[in-house]
Amino acid sequence: MPEDLKDTSRLCLHTITTKPWTLEQCIDGCLRHDIPWITVWREHIEPYGAKEAGRLLRESGLKVASLCRGGFFVSASGRGREDARNENRRIIDEAAEIGAPLVVLVCGADPEVPLPEARQQIVDSIHHIEPHAKAAEVRLAIEPLHPMYADTRSAVVTMDQANNLLLALGSPWVGLAVDVYHVWWDHFLRAEIQRAHESLFAFHVCDWRVPTRDLLNDRTVMGDGCINVPQIRGWMEEFGYRGPIEVEIFSEELWAMDPERLLKRIKNGYLRST
Amino acid sequence: MPEDLKDTSRLCLHTITTKPWTLEQCIDGCLRHDIPWITVWREHIEPYGAKEAGRLLRESGLKVASLCRGGFFVSASGRGREDARNENRRIIDEAAEIGAPLVVLVCGADPEVPLPEARQQIVDSIHHIEPHAKAAEVRLAIEPLHPMYADTRSAVVTMDQANNLLLALGSPWVGLAVDVYHVWWDHFLRAEIQRAHESLFAFHVCDWRVPTRDLLNDRTVMGDGCINVPQIRGWMEEFGYRGPIEVEIFSEELWAMDPERLLKRIKNGYLRST
Repeated sequence: MPEDLKDTSRLCLHTITTKPWTLEQCIDGCLRHDIPWITVWREHIEPYGAKEAGRLLRESGLKVASLCRGGFFVSASGRGREDARNENRRIIDEAAEIGAPLVVLVCGADPEVPLPEARQQIVDSIHHIEPHAKAAEVRLAIEPLHPMYADTRSAVVTMDQANNLLLALGSPWVGLAVDVYHVWWDHFLRAEIQRAHESLFAFHVCDWRVPTRDLLNDRTVMGDGCINVPQIRGWMEEFGYRGPIEVEIFSEELWAMDPERLLKRIKNGYLRST
Repeated sequence: MPEDLKDTSRLCLHTITTKPWTLEQCIDGCLRHDIPWITVWREHIEPYGAKEAGRLLRESGLKVASLCRGGFFVSASGRGREDARNENRRIIDEAAEIGAPLVVLVCGADPEVPLPEARQQIVDSIHHIEPHAKAAEVRLAIEPLHPMYADTRSAVVTMDQANNLLLALGSPWVGLAVDVYHVWWDHFLRAEIQRAHESLFAFHVCDWRVPTRDLLNDRTVMGDGCINVPQIRGWMEEFGYRGPIEVEIFSEELWAMDPERLLKRIKNGYLRST
């Protein structure tokens, strides 16, 4: 294991992981627990506004990994697609304002739109917003989601598809966010991480709870599920990823815990099982 | 659409779809609704015993498509794997006794066993039971499951993997069961159906409910979800499948309905959206 994974210097908290907390509480929690990185969800910015959120983040000294989340480009209507592009331009501006160098994209899906067509819409829309991202110096990370979200959340459900989108887009401003939860089952995972190498913009960790009782909000802490997180993390390192290790956990069960205790459990899971 | 899909001559009911009914009620329901095929779940045989269930089925004149289900070959312990093989030999005997020419295999997974190793265990175990299946003249169908079941139900989560298992096994007694619910998201689906062609032993239909509220028991009737069932059915036909179209729906919501009304809805979904 690389030296910098034996301490918390690369550990990053997604504010959604400590959902009950405000942005200020998330920031304080990171500082108390030696977590130097933070990824901010829009719902945590909203009560403050981007300007004030940016001020709080800069004053904290925390490093902002990314803003979650943009995307949702797919729509049966042209108006819907145009609205989504405009919304993503605003999200890019928001990222710049809070000092986030990256926006994570959940690319979208619509039960009315066949998946291949949806993927073409995604390429087209990212192509449209890419100049805006470049001008703002904010990178975009396509996050392939688990196939169980192919109905309404993402037509991009494999690393293979995500890597192909990158080829189609051909921009240094667009890369991948690899989340172990979505891709752990894929038998070409290591090869696709290798293929992505310079485009590996973000790495999200959590674990797959056994049994999983809910499609959306039943993830768990690294080491408490069936994903071999250290193996996948090792592949990310092997092919050049040196960025933050971002803990993004949606879980009704863990959100009901005291977030302070949850952060201790996360640090433990990070140091032992990531 | 082929002529034989404009009536119910290829329609098959999985007894699990009308779970509240006994085997006798399922048989009567099929006869009342002009459903000539039936796939029998073991839990529907159990109260009767295989011999009596076989007698009821033969007397009904219904055609038995398959017995559901065998498999669950994966285990961290050698004893567990041996027990599973013996159990599958008994299941093959049960299939022969009720007149089912096919056993559907849900191949198994164990959170303690890495997926590639699990797939090797699956090949090994099917290789061991294949002579028993051949002697009983009962075919075996590997059913790739959706990746959301990779933790405890199936290490085989793509058509690609299932086709590769067939290559490894090289037996005319082993083929595939294609279930739209598990594979609809796969962008290589048509190619993998083409690749399987002579090994297309079974075809299961239902639909993906939007939203899906439960990982196991929230499927719906063809036409009521986001899967393009006619497209996939068309690919099955294109590459030579002429067998029954099997309606297999796990749904707490639909199990709570009057099964008589459900059968009407299924016939409607079959004729309009399959």
